[in-house]
Order: sequence, then C-alpha cells, then structure tokens
Amino acid sequence: MTRARRYIRYLVPFSLFGTHRTRQILTANPVAELKRKDVEKVAITAYDYNANNLNSAILDRIEDSFQFKGNNRTTWINVDGIRVADVEKLAAHFGIHALLAEDIVSMNQRPKMDDVDDVLFCLLNMLYFNEKSNCVEQEQISIALGKDFVITFQEDPQKDVFNPIRDKLRINNSKLRQRGPDYLCYSMLDLIVDNYFYVMEKLGDRIEQVEEEVIRKSNTHSLARINHFRKELIVLKRNIAPVRDLIGGIVRSESELLEERTLKYFKDVHDHIIQAHDLSENYRDVMISMQDLYINNVNLRMNEVMKVMAIVTCLLAPATVIGGIFGMNFDVIPTIHNEWGFFIAVGLMLLIPVWMLFMFKKRGWF
Amino acid sequence: MTRARRYIRYLVPFSLFGTHRTRQILTANPVAELKRKDVEKVAITAYDYNANNLNSAILDRIEDSFQFKGNNRTTWINVDGIRVADVEKLAAHFGIHALLAEDIVSMNQRPKMDDVDDVLFCLLNMLYFNEKSNCVEQEQISIALGKDFVITFQEDPQKDVFNPIRDKLRINNSKLRQRGPDYLCYSMLDLIVDNYFYVMEKLGDRIEQVEEEVIRKSNTHSLARINHFRKELIVLKRNIAPVRDLIGGIVRSESELLEERTLKYFKDVHDHIIQAHDLSENYRDVMISMQDLYINNVNLRMNEVMKVMAIVTCLLAPATVIGGIFGMNFDVIPTIHNEWGFFIAVGLMLLIPVWMLFMFKKRGWF
Amino acid sequence: MTRARRYIRYLVPFSLFGTHRTRQILTANPVAELKRKDVEKVAITAYDYNANNLNSAILDRIEDSFQFKGNNRTTWINVDGIRVADVEKLAAHFGIHALLAEDIVSMNQRPKMDDVDDVLFCLLNMLYFNEKSNCVEQEQISIALGKDFVITFQEDPQKDVFNPIRDKLRINNSKLRQRGPDYLCYSMLDLIVDNYFYVMEKLGDRIEQVEEEVIRKSNTHSLARINHFRKELIVLKRNIAPVRDLIGGIVRSESELLEERTLKYFKDVHDHIIQAHDLSENYRDVMISMQDLYINNVNLRMNEVMKVMAIVTCLLAPATVIGGIFGMNFDVIPTIHNEWGFFIAVGLMLLIPVWMLFMFKKRGWF
Amino acid sequence: MTRARRYIRYLVPFSLFGTHRTRQILTANPVAELKRKDVEKVAITAYDYNANNLNSAILDRIEDSFQFKGNNRTTWINVDGIRVADVEKLAAHFGIHALLAEDIVSMNQRPKMDDVDDVLFCLLNMLYFNEKSNCVEQEQISIALGKDFVITFQEDPQKDVFNPIRDKLRINNSKLRQRGPDYLCYSMLDLIVDNYFYVMEKLGDRIEQVEEEVIRKSNTHSLARINHFRKELIVLKRNIAPVRDLIGGIVRSESELLEERTLKYFKDVHDHIIQAHDLSENYRDVMISMQDLYINNVNLRMNEVMKVMAIVTCLLAPATVIGGIFGMNFDVIPTIHNEWGFFIAVGLMLLIPVWMLFMFKKRGWF
Amino acid sequence: MTRARRYIRYLVPFSLFGTHRTRQILTANPVAELKRKDVEKVAITAYDYNANNLNSAILDRIEDSFQFKGNNRTTWINVDGIRVADVEKLAAHFGIHALLAEDIVSMNQRPKMDDVDDVLFCLLNMLYFNEKSNCVEQEQISIALGKDFVITFQEDPQKDVFNPIRDKLRINNSKLRQRGPDYLCYSMLDLIVDNYFYVMEKLGDRIEQVEEEVIRKSNTHSLARINHFRKELIVLKRNIAPVRDLIGGIVRSESELLEERTLKYFKDVHDHIIQAHDLSENYRDVMISMQDLYINNVNLRMNEVMKVMAIVTCLLAPATVIGGIFGMNFDVIPTIHNEWGFFIAVGLMLLIPVWMLFMFKKRGWF
Repeated sequence: MTRARRYIRYLVPFSLFGTHRTRQILTANPVAELKRKDVEKVAITAYDYNANNLNSAILDRIEDSFQFKGNNRTTWINVDGIRVADVEKLAAHFGIHALLAEDIVSMNQRPKMDDVDDVLFCLLNMLYFNEKSNCVEQEQISIALGKDFVITFQEDPQKDVFNPIRDKLRINNSKLRQRGPDYLCYSMLDLIVDNYFYVMEKLGDRIEQVEEEVIRKSNTHSLARINHFRKELIVLKRNIAPVRDLIGGIVRSESELLEERTLKYFKDVHDHIIQAHDLSENYRDVMISMQDLYINNVNLRMNEVMKVMAIVTCLLAPATVIGGIFGMNFDVIPTIHNEWGFFIAVGLMLLIPVWMLFMFKKRGWF
Repeated sequence: MTRARRYIRYLVPFSLFGTHRTRQILTANPVAELKRKDVEKVAITAYDYNANNLNSAILDRIEDSFQFKGNNRTTWINVDGIRVADVEKLAAHFGIHALLAEDIVSMNQRPKMDDVDDVLFCLLNMLYFNEKSNCVEQEQISIALGKDFVITFQEDPQKDVFNPIRDKLRINNSKLRQRGPDYLCYSMLDLIVDNYFYVMEKLGDRIEQVEEEVIRKSNTHSLARINHFRKELIVLKRNIAPVRDLIGGIVRSESELLEERTLKYFKDVHDHIIQAHDLSENYRDVMISMQDLYINNVNLRMNEVMKVMAIVTCLLAPATVIGGIFGMNFDVIPTIHNEWGFFIAVGLMLLIPVWMLFMFKKRGWF
Repeated sequence: MTRARRYIRYLVPFSLFGTHRTRQILTANPVAELKRKDVEKVAITAYDYNANNLNSAILDRIEDSFQFKGNNRTTWINVDGIRVADVEKLAAHFGIHALLAEDIVSMNQRPKMDDVDDVLFCLLNMLYFNEKSNCVEQEQISIALGKDFVITFQEDPQKDVFNPIRDKLRINNSKLRQRGPDYLCYSMLDLIVDNYFYVMEKLGDRIEQVEEEVIRKSNTHSLARINHFRKELIVLKRNIAPVRDLIGGIVRSESELLEERTLKYFKDVHDHIIQAHDLSENYRDVMISMQDLYINNVNLRMNEVMKVMAIVTCLLAPATVIGGIFGMNFDVIPTIHNEWGFFIAVGLMLLIPVWMLFMFKKRGWF
Repeated sequence: MTRARRYIRYLVPFSLFGTHRTRQILTANPVAELKRKDVEKVAITAYDYNANNLNSAILDRIEDSFQFKGNNRTTWINVDGIRVADVEKLAAHFGIHALLAEDIVSMNQRPKMDDVDDVLFCLLNMLYFNEKSNCVEQEQISIALGKDFVITFQEDPQKDVFNPIRDKLRINNSKLRQRGPDYLCYSMLDLIVDNYFYVMEKLGDRIEQVEEEVIRKSNTHSLARINHFRKELIVLKRNIAPVRDLIGGIVRSESELLEERTLKYFKDVHDHIIQAHDLSENYRDVMISMQDLYINNVNLRMNEVMKVMAIVTCLLAPATVIGGIFGMNFDVIPTIHNEWGFFIAVGLMLLIPVWMLFMFKKRGWF
Repeated sequence: MTRARRYIRYLVPFSLFGTHRTRQILTANPVAELKRKDVEKVAITAYDYNANNLNSAILDRIEDSFQFKGNNRTTWINVDGIRVADVEKLAAHFGIHALLAEDIVSMNQRPKMDDVDDVLFCLLNMLYFNEKSNCVEQEQISIALGKDFVITFQEDPQKDVFNPIRDKLRINNSKLRQRGPDYLCYSMLDLIVDNYFYVMEKLGDRIEQVEEEVIRKSNTHSLARINHFRKELIVLKRNIAPVRDLIGGIVRSESELLEERTLKYFKDVHDHIIQAHDLSENYRDVMISMQDLYINNVNLRMNEVMKVMAIVTCLLAPATVIGGIFGMNFDVIPTIHNEWGFFIAVGLMLLIPVWMLFMFKKRGWF
C-alpha cells in the first residue's frame, strides 16, 4: 500500500502547475480595466534643477507642481500611485494629450512610444523577479518628456525604482545635472533596461536549477517547472520585444526634444535592449533543448524498465519450463527416480540463464 | 465486462471532436455564397447631428435616408440586415463604388480597407464568444465613411452592437457630437477592437479550464478540447491579423476624410489591435505548451504502468521459480521431507522480493 | 491463423501511399520538357467586339486571326491546344516577345507576370479537383493583354474554362462589352481565382472526412490519407502563393494597358487571392493538428493495451504464487490435510485480485 | 543463435550512415584551403567571334589569350584547371580585380556576384548527381564578363560543362553569335540553372524510392537513407539560395555591361532559379512528411507487437490459474477424483480464452 | 548486483550535462559586470609606419602613446589587458567618445559597430575552440579606427591574436604598409572572421564524432554530447550573426575614414561572414537531424526489446500450459500412465514453438 502511495505521489505534484498564472498571462486586456481604482495615497515629488542648483520638494497636491512649468530649469515630477483626476489635471497643464493621459491610467498596456504635441511619451514596464513565486512581475511606468520637464508615473508607491537617479541628481555638476531633460529620460530608460538583464539573470539561475533537476530526476516536478518557466519567458518576451521598437522609435524620431549629443546615449540603450532581446531568444532555445532533454530522459528510463522486463522474462523462461516439465504427473519420467535428477534440473535452471546472460552481453544487448 | 466497458469509454468521447467546426473554418469562400438570401426584416436607423442638435429616426424605406446627404451635419445611417437591392440603392446615392456594395452583400469576406472615390470603406468582423458551443462567432460589419456621413451595415438585426455609441450620441456637446464623421468611425472601430479583448478573455477562461483538466486528468476529453480550442485560435487569428493591416492602412492613408486631430485616435486603436495580435500569439504559445504537457502527462502515466509491470514481474519471478523447483516430482529432493522445508521455501518466496524492493529503492528505481 | 492475418492487414493498406504522386510533385522541371508534343487538334476562337456589336468566329488557321489586329475594337483570341509553330506565329504578329512565347509552350512553369513591349503577360494554372484520385490537377493558362486584344492559351481543348465569360460577351452593352481588354483580362483572372476557392472547398470536404476517420479509427488508412492530403496542400500552395505576387504585380505595374477605373477590379481580385492564401495556411494548420490528433490517438490506444496487460499481470500474480506454494511436494504443508484448505486457497486466489481491483479503482488507476 | 543474429542485423546497416559526408558538408571553409594545389594540366580554349566569323583556338600558354583584348569582337576564354599564376596574369591583363582573382583560386566559396571596375563577376557551382554515392557534387565555376570578353574558370578539366554553348557558337548568325558577351554570359547561367533542375529530378527519383522503401519496410536502412538525403538537401539549398540572390543582383545591377534587350533573358533565368528554390522547399516538405511517416510506421508496428503480447498474456492467464489450482496438493480437492474432472478443467482452459477472444473482437479490440 | 550496477551506469553519465555551461550562456549581462577588475599587467605596443619606415615600440605607460597622434603616419596602438584608467586616458586623447570607452571596459557586449565623432568603432569577439572542454570560448576585441590611427584592446595578454599582422607589418612596402589605417582595420577583421571558420571546422570535427557515436551506440553519453554541442552552437550563432550586421554596417557606412579602394576588401570580409552565418545554419540543421536520428535509434532498440519479449512470451505460452495441464492432480488424466506420454508432452512443448517461429517468420514478423 505504501508502495502504491509512492506511485500516486507522482501524480500529486501536478498541483504545482498553476493555472492561475496562465490566466494572468492570457488576460492582458488594456480596455476592460480602463479605469483602475484610485490609490489611496499618492506620493508626488518634484526635482527642479540646473547644473548648480537643485530644489527638491515633496508635494501634497498635484496643483503644486504647476509652478515648475516654463521656468527654464529642468523639472522632474514623479507621481507614485495613480489617481485619475490628478493625472488628467497634470496632463492638461503640461500639454500632454488626453489620449496619453488615458494610457497612463490604463493597465496592461503594451509598451509603446508616442510623439504628440511636443511631448515624447514612453510607456513601458519595469520587471521584477518574485523570488517566492518564481514569477516575473511587472510595474507600469509612464514617462512624458517635454521641453523642460520629465513627468513620470508609477503604479505602486512601494515600488519606486528611480532612487539611483535621485542620488545622482543630488551631486552638483554631475553629468545628469548639466544636461537637460532628454538626458534624464535616457537615464530612466537605461535604468529600466539594465534591470531587464538583472531579471534575466535571476531567471537564468532558476532555469539552471531546473536543468540540474531534469538531469538528476526528470520527474513530474521538473515537468511542472519547465512548464512554469516557459510561461515566464512569454512574459519576458512580451515586455522586451516592444521596448526594442520603442527605443528604436526614439532614436529614429528626430524629435526636437532630443539633443544631438544625447542621441548617442539612446543608441547605447538601444544596443542593450537588442542584446536583451537576443538573450531572451537564447533562453527560449535553452528551454526547448531542456524540454527535449526531459523527454529523452523519460524515454530512456522507460527503455531501461523495458530492458529489465525483457531480461527477467527471458531468464524466467527456462526455469518455468523445466519446473513445468518435471512437475507433470506422468508415470514414466526419465531421471525422476535418479538420485541426482533434482540437482541436474535445478542446475539447468541456473546454467541456462547464466549462459543466456553471457550471450546477451557478448552481443552488447545491455 | 464492466471493466472492459470502462476502457471502451476512453474511446467514446472522441465524438466530442466535431468535424462540423472544421468544415466551417475551412470553407470561407467569399465567392460561392456571393448573393446571400435577403433577410425578411431590415431595421434602418438614422442619426443626423451636430454639436447642439440631434435628429434620430427609424426609417421604413431605404429611400428615406437620401435626404440626409449634403446637409452639412454629420449623418449616421445604420442598416441592420442586408437586402441586395437596398444596399445598391444606398451605395448609388451616397457615391459608394459598386464593388464595395458587392463586398457588403458578400459573406465570409477577409477584413479589408479601401479608399475609393472619397469614401473610406472598412469591412471587418465583430466577434462573439458563444458560451454554449465554446465557439468564436463572427458578424460582418461594413463601415463606409464619407465627407459628412457614416453608413454601417450589419447582418443580423438581433445582434446590433453599436448601442454604446448611440448612448453617447444622445448627450449634447459630447466629444462624439462635437467631432465629425471620422471620429464616429473611430468610435466604431474602437468598440469592435475592444470587443476582441473581451472575446479573448472569455477564450482565456476556457483555456485555463482546459489546462486544469489536462493537469488533473489528461484523458481523451482534454485532448478533444485542446483540439477544439486550437481551431478557435485559427478563427481568432484570421480575424485579428487583417484588422491590424486594416487600421494601419487607415493611419497611413492620408485620406482627406480624416482630420489631423482624429488621426491620433486611430493610432490608439492601432496600438490596441497590435496588442491583441501579440496576445493571440501568446495564446498560441500557451496552447502549444499545453499540448506538450498533455503528451508528457500521457507518457508519464504509461511509464508508471510500465514500472508497475516491471516490478510485479520481478517480484513474481523468484516465487514462480521456487514453486516450480519444489513442485517437481523427483524422488530425491533435498529438504522435502524436512519439517520446516515448506516454511523455508515460502519464506524465501517472501524474503527475496523484499530484498529486491530494498535494492531497487536504494538505487532510486522507483 | 486468421487472427494473424487480421494483424497483417494493418500492414497492407500502406499500398495506399502512392509514391507516384510524390514523383509528380517533385519533378516540376520547366526546362527538361521545354518542347511539348504538339497536340493534334487545336481549337481557335475569336471574339471581336465593342459595346454594340460582337463578331464571334471559329478559326481554322492561326493566320485567320491576324486580321483582328488594330481594328480599334476589342479582340479576344482563345487558343485551346498548343502547337509550337502556331504560338510563334501568333506571338510574332501581335508583338509578344519570343521569351514569352517560349513560356507559353513550356510546361510546369511557375505562375508569373511580365510586362514586356506593351504586352502584359500572365501565366498561371487553373486548378481542378479530381474526385476520383482526390488530387489537385492543374491546367496551364497563358494570358497576353495588348492594347486592343487579349490572347489566351490553354493546354487541353477538353478543359476550356472561359464559358462564363463567353456567355457575358454575348449580352449587348454588358459591362464586359462596354469595357476594354483590361476588363476582359480581369474577368479571366477573377474566374480563375474564384475557382481556387471551389477547389479548396472540395479539398476541405475531403479533409473533414479524413478528420472524421482519424477520430473514429486512426488506423494506417487514415495515416495514408493524411499523407496524401499533405502532398495536395503542397500543390495548392505552390499554385496560390505565386499568383498572389502575380496579381499584386499587375496592381503595382502602372502599365498603360490598365485603365484607372479597371484597377479597382484587379485590387478586388488581389483581395480574393490574399484570402485564398490565408485560407491555405489555415488548411495547413488544420492538417498539422489532425496529424497530432492521429499520433495522440495511436498513443492512447497503446496506453490502453499497456494498462490491460498491467492489470492482467497483477491479477495473475497472487493466483500463480498461491498455486505454486501449495503445489510444492513438501511432506509438511500446513492446512494441506485440512478439509477446507483447497477452498481457502482458491478463495484467496479470487479475493486478492478483487481487493487489488478495488484499491486500483480507488486511486483512479483505470 | 541465428535468431539473435537476425536481430543484430538491425544494428548493422547503421554503417550506412556515413559521417564522412557530414564532414564534407560542415567544413566549407573558404579560407583554410585558400591556395589550392595547382593542377598539372590546364586546358585553355578561346573563341573570338562576331555574327559572321568565328576563330576558335586551343591555347598553350595563358599569355596567348592576351591578344584578344580590345579587338571589338566578342571573346570567350575558358580555362579548365586552376593554376594560381595563370589566373593572376589573366586577371591583371583583363582588368579583373585582385580580390576576384583570389576568389577564383579559392575553393568552397559561397556563390556570389560582384560588379568591380567594369567587370561583372559571378562565382557559382555546377551541380552533379553522383549516381553511385547518391551525393550531390559541385564544381566551382567563375565567370568574368567584361566589355567585350567573357572569361570562365572551372576546376576539373574532365568536367567541362559548356559544350552545348560551343555547339551553338559554331553556327553562323545564331542568336548567340549575333549578340554580345552579355548574352554569352546569360547562356552560361541558363545552362547551369537548367542543370539544377536535372539534379533535382535525379534526387527526386531517389527520394521516391526511399518513400517506397519507407512504406514497405520502414527499417533502419530507410532511416539511414532519409538521413542521407536530408544532408543532400542541405547541399542543394546551400547552392541554390545564393544563386537566386546572385541572378537577382545581376538583374538589378544596372551595369552598363548588360544591354537592355538581354536583361529580359536574365529575368527569365531569375524566374527559373526562383522556381528551383521553391521546388527545393517542396523537397524539404516531402522529406519531413516522409520522416513523419517513418516514425508513425515504426510506432504502428510496436503497437502491433504490444497487442499480440497483451492478447497472449490474457489468453495464458486462465490456463495458468486453472493448472495451478488443480496442481495443488490438498487432500480434498473437489472433482479431482471425478472421472471427467480433467476434461472439464482442460475444457475450461480452452473455452475461457475462446470466449475472451469473442468478447475482445466484439469490442473492436483487434 | 553487478547487473543492476550496469543499468545504473546509464544514469551516471548525466553528470556530463554540465549546467555550468548553461549559466555561462544565459548570463551575458553587459551591465552587471560593467567595471571589470583591472588586470595587473598591461602590455602596450605601438607600430608607427608608412610604406618605407616602421617604428615599433613596447610602451611602459599609456601616456607614451600620445606622441603618435597626428604625425601623418599610420599608427597602431595595441593594448593587451584592460585597465579602466588607461582606457579612459587613451580615449580622451584620441577623441574616442566616452560611451565607446565604457563599451571597451564592459564585458559580454554584443558585437556592434559605431561611427561617432570621426572614429569608426568595432567591438566583436575572437572565438577559440577549447579542445579540452569542447567549448567555444570568446575574447572581446575592440577596434577604434581614426583618421591616422588604429587602437585595439584585448582582454587577455596571453591570448594576443594579431601576430600575423605584425609579421606583415615588418615587411617594407608590403600592401599593409602601403595602405592606411582602414586597410589595417580590414586586416584585423579578416583575421578574426577567418578564425571563425577555423573554430567551426573544429566544432565540425567534434559533431562528426558525435554522429559516429550516435550511430554506433546512441546511449546517454551521446545525448549529453548532443545537448552540449547544441549549446555551443548558440554561442557560435550569437557571435556570428551580429558580426554580419557589423561588417555590413561598415560597408554601408560611407564613412570618410574608409577609402574607396579599401571598401572592396571590407565587402570581401562581408561575403565571408555571410558564408560563416549560412554555415552555422547548416550546423544547426545537421544537429537537428542528428537528434532525430538519436531518438529514432532509441525507439528502434526499444522496439527490438519489445519484439524479443513478445516472442519469448509467445514461445513460453504452450510449454507453460502443457506443463500445467499434466501437472494437475486429477485421478484420471489420459496418457498419464502411458510409457511415452511424457515424451509426447515434452515433444509438444518443443514442436509448437518451432511451428510458431516458422509461422512468424513466414509473415515477416521478425
């Protein structure tokens, strides 16, 4: 019974295959959830700077940010947490088209870039690797680049990602401070794309673990994990591929918002995102060859079992037949009254299999 | 016998695989059924509006709509139900090319866009998800955008889809009322594309259920369902892919019928349809990995059965041989007259398998 | 022996797999058979018309057609059956380039379009579905469109395909009669492309039948048929894909032979051929998922057999062991002299399998 | 033992799988063997002609060909056998760039076309089908087209391929004689491309034979042959695909070396090479479906064996159990002293399997 | 037990599948390791030359190289070993953009080409085939081509690759000495690309060995090696594909740094890298067909085992049944008291299998 349970166990870990994640991946509807529930707390910060001077402020109301417009300094307004009314007010004041404002408050948008009314708009996802669920999570980030401002929107106030930029901003005469808003926008995209590599590295670690497991055990558990990571690769590719077009679009946009000398930096990010995309293709190839490996391993084991069965069946054959022969109840059976008959019979039962094994081995059967 | 029937059952649900659906998918002939049977009842409604004023009317005869032409207000004429004569009359009066009129009355057309004689013409399919048959159903919609009118044709009077637009039209000074017919056309395409996401969401629900079933049972029933949804994905892709080109064509058309400020909205719909297309690719990927999962599960079960057979065969081996040995009718068989002989023999019959199990387990055989 | 024969039968229907068809598909050499054998009988018909007036004539000699050149009326010369000398004469007189004349008399040409010396030349294949052999057959048609003439060449006089056009030509003031040779050329292409849908519909019927067979039986016969129709799909695609480029080439050609108002009609044919091409891709997808279904079905059946073997093996195990135990010839075997011993032993032989079945069922083993 | 050998035989034909060919395919290094060993014998022929007059000469030394330059007649110099010094001298005199000269003496070059310093240079491979080894062999041909000359280089003096062209050159006023060197160059490419079809036809014959073998036997031998021809298709595609670009490049080159009227002929070759490329894709499709067929056949046979095993196992079951029951040594066994007991038992041993067969058959089990 | 161990052995070589390599392939993060550890020893060499005169020097400090700038001679500065400070100083002095300097000191960069501020910059990898680990190793090389200088950076001082170029430089009036820095840059790229072929040849050797192994043994070891080389092919392709774009980019760049006459040489390298890319595709095809071969071989062996089992099972059947029949303890068993009964029974036990074998063979069963 415990043996039976042990087999049953093979059927249990299927519960590992979460259909929940499939649903998340398949229902990326940018429309159905157009209006997200407004968050309770919104954190608005503003950085107003030139090379020598930096004002940083935490704003209570969205209207407080309006003063920074058109003051000939570079302004970065960061909004953590989306409230529809706030976004619309801000968009109206800074000349961001209403459709873009709608994109900012929508969820599950495909990464995209737009150049409308002197505002260069990027919407893309920051990726995180959730170590507990082994899932790639995403956080939507909208960046609006204007003549002398950058406005950024993030969903979750807890997950602010721009701290490295804040650190650099605090340094007087740093490159970031010397350059205009286009360089600030570049720094953000660079930070996000660099993070993709970090997520892929984490994912690579996990895939390596799965490979090790496949090699060692190849049971249902590893099948479940292969299946799981195939789904995560879909999420990864879905986020990286359009970002490639997005940054390529910026490079080709010939927007007046981008200085000639900053363009090189965007090209550098473009190189990185292309590499990330190539790498995600490599991940897919490795994943496929891992699945092939899994199937081959399973087949190999089955073949092993078949071989053992075949050999046991063959070795059993002579013993069964000899036992049957001398177990018959005929009156006249040769050697049956012979003193050594039994030992001869048992000897044959042993010798024939040994000879068979020898022959099999000689022919490289096993 | 009941056991046998239980196995037979595995062969029965194959009747689930409907070949009927295959036929529907394969025979999308726009020519053979060029002339559809005229419907009995046609519902014609007209909306004639500017920002401040709206006339809505239910028309009895197609000729009643002719008055709205050229009155400097935006006119929307919606025809639910296709009668060849009506379509031709309407087309002739409003300057829609005869070939387009033919497209309107044809069935199973590939979604397409055309810009002929100052009329921008779109033909595409509204999709519905039939919850009962789990099929993606389609309803052909033709939209003709002229200088100051939009004329729409739908097949089935029961399935009118433009109610949300009607609601917005009733509101004075709504954006829809302030803008011209190009914005009305955009609203329609937006409504249709948004609906694609809704259908995909429903389909995603079903696919998730199939995945759960595959994980839990992996029987023929789940195979039948995988097969079914693969076909539905063909229908989905067939409808979405050409619509992407269609809307892309409108954006690039440089038609004078589209105001500069409306173009942004069409671009927005274009973003949505690209996302829908990407998503349908993801569906396909998920479907393929589900089929792989199914096959792997089936193989795994077979391996389980093989293992049990191998183990039973191995455990049976010593008992059979020992029984055979001491069942032989030789006169001289050692221990046969011994009082404990039987118990030793039976003991060996039990001990050898136990020892074998121990060895197998030690080597991680099962 | 009859049983054995029954198994053998599974190996017989392989003769269904015709290698003959493979040869036909693989040897599409336009060069080796450059010069076809001249047909014995050639049927030449000429239609010389304008909107009000139609001369139709059956010509005996190819030279009789020379008079129609340059008479300011539209002339259609149709040649059923290819004789090299005739084609060369006709080509020389009507200014068709010698290379095109060579194409006309070649066989197995890839569909193509050419615009040489004021002649727009199309070569493509009419498709037929042979109901007996279930094969897609092809008949090469060459169309040469000049300033005021259309000359068509077909191989087989029996298989003339242009009767619907002849019917329309006979109607005075019909659209076909009012328009010039470009519209006549359009009508021919439209007729041919429409026929592709008809052939695909027939093929779709057969594929549906195969699917039904795969679902019901999944034997070698269905494998042979899947294999057969995969080859037919190669023929189909090979004919449709280049025709798409052909008609696309006409639409983009900016040839002076095509009036502006006729171009719309060619665009319409272009839409149709794109749809035919999409549909042929769908056919391929359906075919692949059918092959997957076949393989899965075959696997499923094998699994069934394996399960039955496993169960019989398991049920046999206790009976064999018990029979072996009490069949041994020891002097002292407990219960052997007991009156009910036999019944207890046989009872165990029955009870243990019943209990095993019960346990297997409880765990969902079968 | 002979039986065992018979199985071993299945493992023998693996020696059919030549790894030698794999090496040939994989080591196509244009660099490592840059300098080929000079051949011992070089055959140089020159044809100097215009429409009315032809000088043909067999030249002893490469310098003898220098006189033909710039004599206003078309000159064709053909070099069979490559000697590095000769090629360099010739190239220097006729203004062929040093890099092209290096290409001529290199081996395993990818087919390519170049237009340098008023010389149009083509390097491609003539293909041969070796009937004995069933391999596609290649012979590198370089063609340099200048203002009034064509120089060709071939590797193996034994394998000269241009005899049909020589024959045509001997005819006064033939098209080839009337036209310039561009037409001569076209004739060569046409000859080479036509030969591709011939090689494919041979290959098609062999593939058809393999298919027949797969259908009839599906043993390791056919697997080896499928594997072999898959490699040959790689060779085929590797030669045809770049030639398509090569000839397309000539057509688009707008080189002054090509007369307008000759361009049509190059377009015709282009059509042929496209068809050859399409056809090679079809070969691949046929090959893949053949491999599928092989696998399915092998599976089917295994299923047959499994079925027989299952049936024998089932039929053996009751006989074994009944024999075991009445072979036990209990004192009291019912019917054991009955006169007909034995016959009843044996009768049951026969009747139960018969009844089982009947039931199996009724359920369509075999 | 030794037998069991022999089977276990099949599971051991799985340790061949190194997951270590997977990690190397998957973590190609150009960002995370942005700042490499400075090497201890840096070897700087400078070659300053024109056609007649060559100064070569080993420099101690990076500053010593500054003198060569702008002296109207061609200068090649080669830096073996990367120290961030050195690279930055050199870049600043020679006008190499700061972003490019960052690329030089980064690791795991994707091969790329850039044309910034009158410097043409190439970053690519030299490939080595490690004969011991059978891995493709890479060494990053950066080449900066300026108006009169070429600066190269390599990682590992041990692995300097440019010796052939140094040899040519020492020859007065050699082509390399006569030409400018663009020709020097070409020579380097040519050397690197030629080396790719060398690596592929080594890899081809190994793949051929694997194929031989697959054909002869098809055990887990060969599976491990197929898996291993699939990964190496990923590395190969990842390095070759972007280099194709890189060199194509140089050819199309219209940079003033490239003389017209040198462009032809770059085109020649471009041809080579395209061929290398094609060849790497062929490698992939061969690899896939080898994996198919492996799977088919494994299946074939399993089928052999199944067949042997089926035959042994069938041959065992009559002997078992006959032995069971005459082993029953009925009082009345016909022939049991007959003198020849035993021999008849044993004779049947032998004759029936022989007859079965004969029948099986007649039907081509084995």
